[in-house]
Amino acid sequence: MGEFDLIRRYFQRPATAGVDVGVGDDCAVLVPTPGARWLVSSDMLVEGRHFLSTVDPARLGHKALAVNLSDLAACGATPRGFTLALALPRVDEAWLASFARGLWALADASACPLIGGDTTQGPLNICITVFGEAPPGQALLRSGARVGDEIWVSGRLGDARLALEVFRGTVALDGAAFDGARVAMECPMPRLALGQALRGIATAAVDVSDGVLGDLGHILEASRVGARLDVDALPRSAVLAAQPAVVQRECLLAGGDDYEIIFTAPVGARLPDTGVALTRIGVIEAHPGLRVVDAHGAAVDHGLRSFDHFKS
Amino acid sequence: MGEFDLIRRYFQRPATAGVDVGVGDDCAVLVPTPGARWLVSSDMLVEGRHFLSTVDPARLGHKALAVNLSDLAACGATPRGFTLALALPRVDEAWLASFARGLWALADASACPLIGGDTTQGPLNICITVFGEAPPGQALLRSGARVGDEIWVSGRLGDARLALEVFRGTVALDGAAFDGARVAMECPMPRLALGQALRGIATAAVDVSDGVLGDLGHILEASRVGARLDVDALPRSAVLAAQPAVVQRECLLAGGDDYEIIFTAPVGARLPDTGVALTRIGVIEAHPGLRVVDAHGAAVDHGLRSFDHFKS
Repeated sequence: MGEFDLIRRYFQRPATAGVDVGVGDDCAVLVPTPGARWLVSSDMLVEGRHFLSTVDPARLGHKALAVNLSDLAACGATPRGFTLALALPRVDEAWLASFARGLWALADASACPLIGGDTTQGPLNICITVFGEAPPGQALLRSGARVGDEIWVSGRLGDARLALEVFRGTVALDGAAFDGARVAMECPMPRLALGQALRGIATAAVDVSDGVLGDLGHILEASRVGARLDVDALPRSAVLAAQPAVVQRECLLAGGDDYEIIFTAPVGARLPDTGVALTRIGVIEAHPGLRVVDAHGAAVDHGLRSFDHFKS
Repeated sequence: MGEFDLIRRYFQRPATAGVDVGVGDDCAVLVPTPGARWLVSSDMLVEGRHFLSTVDPARLGHKALAVNLSDLAACGATPRGFTLALALPRVDEAWLASFARGLWALADASACPLIGGDTTQGPLNICITVFGEAPPGQALLRSGARVGDEIWVSGRLGDARLALEVFRGTVALDGAAFDGARVAMECPMPRLALGQALRGIATAAVDVSDGVLGDLGHILEASRVGARLDVDALPRSAVLAAQPAVVQRECLLAGGDDYEIIFTAPVGARLPDTGVALTRIGVIEAHPGLRVVDAHGAAVDHGLRSFDHFKS
């Protein structure tokens, strides 16, 4: 199968509303909503770095899009479409059919059509760029946190890292517990409805891709503030809560791959109910730096750092 | 140097007009021109497939953006920005500085700012997604060619393929001749001004990335027409014209990497002068298929096919 047959078979569908031209021309042509700002994010996934070679291709298709949609979610954007650039070592039709199935399922569920892209031969690499919209001045940025704001996080943290530690052989879980953690690692759900509902409420937001320490750190740096973070308040699964404290803290603080949303909001803000649990995990302070404390307010010396794609 | 230092040092600059938020948040935020359509294209470049490991990194930075801007040019779009996702085997600062210099030079010359992206460790892979704008209904598509339209091409064809053949050892050129062909291969100039000037004039357009046979074929397929192409009319350099006829035809018809624009226009259309030579190379006909003829109108049996990333 050649390049163009591959695109036609797995990655081409009729154009949808708001898309004048989809896959199959030099460019896709989209119709922006009048007055809206245009939001863009791009993520590249590399085998061995962002996913294991053993991953179910359908889950990989889901995750490749999910991590990009999570960036739109963190900015409060409404998805409009995405491009997919794919380097494949060879044309494996069973793999492609499964990958495309996982990708399209999330694309359909998110009303985010595939509008273009590229395929080529090379070491497996998946690069997705997503486009979304938000009203002027309402995109959630990292730079708006104010002293006194409360810090919140959606869902639960740490299970993706816990599953990775099972693959690495440092943690043992029984079958059902491992399956649950593995779903968190391989099938994150981007918090799109939450992000959109936080427009005009959250003062700053970021998605948790590299771990709470690093990603909350981005808010602190961009907003030129500090924070106190209660590690015992961080929401976790029963499976993670059954692990030794040192494992819990590593997974919760430096885990990454959670794709939950950390946001700040003024005390007393009316937070939206989108069916996703929200947990208060700390407070923004004037003094620079991030102070991790336990439930008693005592400083926690965690010795952890955030994930870095060129250092870890 | 870590991931975020790398981004700050080489790929981050203050936001420019029309960009509310550039590199450094979860998403970039752009201000669309009221009423305009939004055009998007994405290309992935892999070492050994799209460029040689010996290429000057500055030229690679230029080319990675140029091949994407060429898609905007073929659609008649005005560039608005681009994202860069980059997988690097290691952090080589000299390489990065040179790559970034070539990239920024073309970005500045094209008024197309870098607005976001991603960096990670992995086999060298460059994925750029470009965004541009065009007035409603004025994007140049592949699907508008009509029977009787003339077929035109910008600039010259075949030099990039000629340089590749020198690297492959099938053609020998002296130093100056090779340098010229190598510039064509490594530093293509996207025909942005021409593309924009062809809005409302050209009936269809495509950029020449995979060779005239394949790319003109895309117009014929999308427009449901056929064509006659005069191979002797295809514009070529003096260096290419000095090669044997069989080499000339392969480079001209199936070369690829030219990044010129093929477009169709009604007979007598007033073509724009943007400083780029335009050559009439054929005519659109009702009978399906592409008939390659010589200057005397005799059929040419070239036996060539277009480049395919999974077949060549």
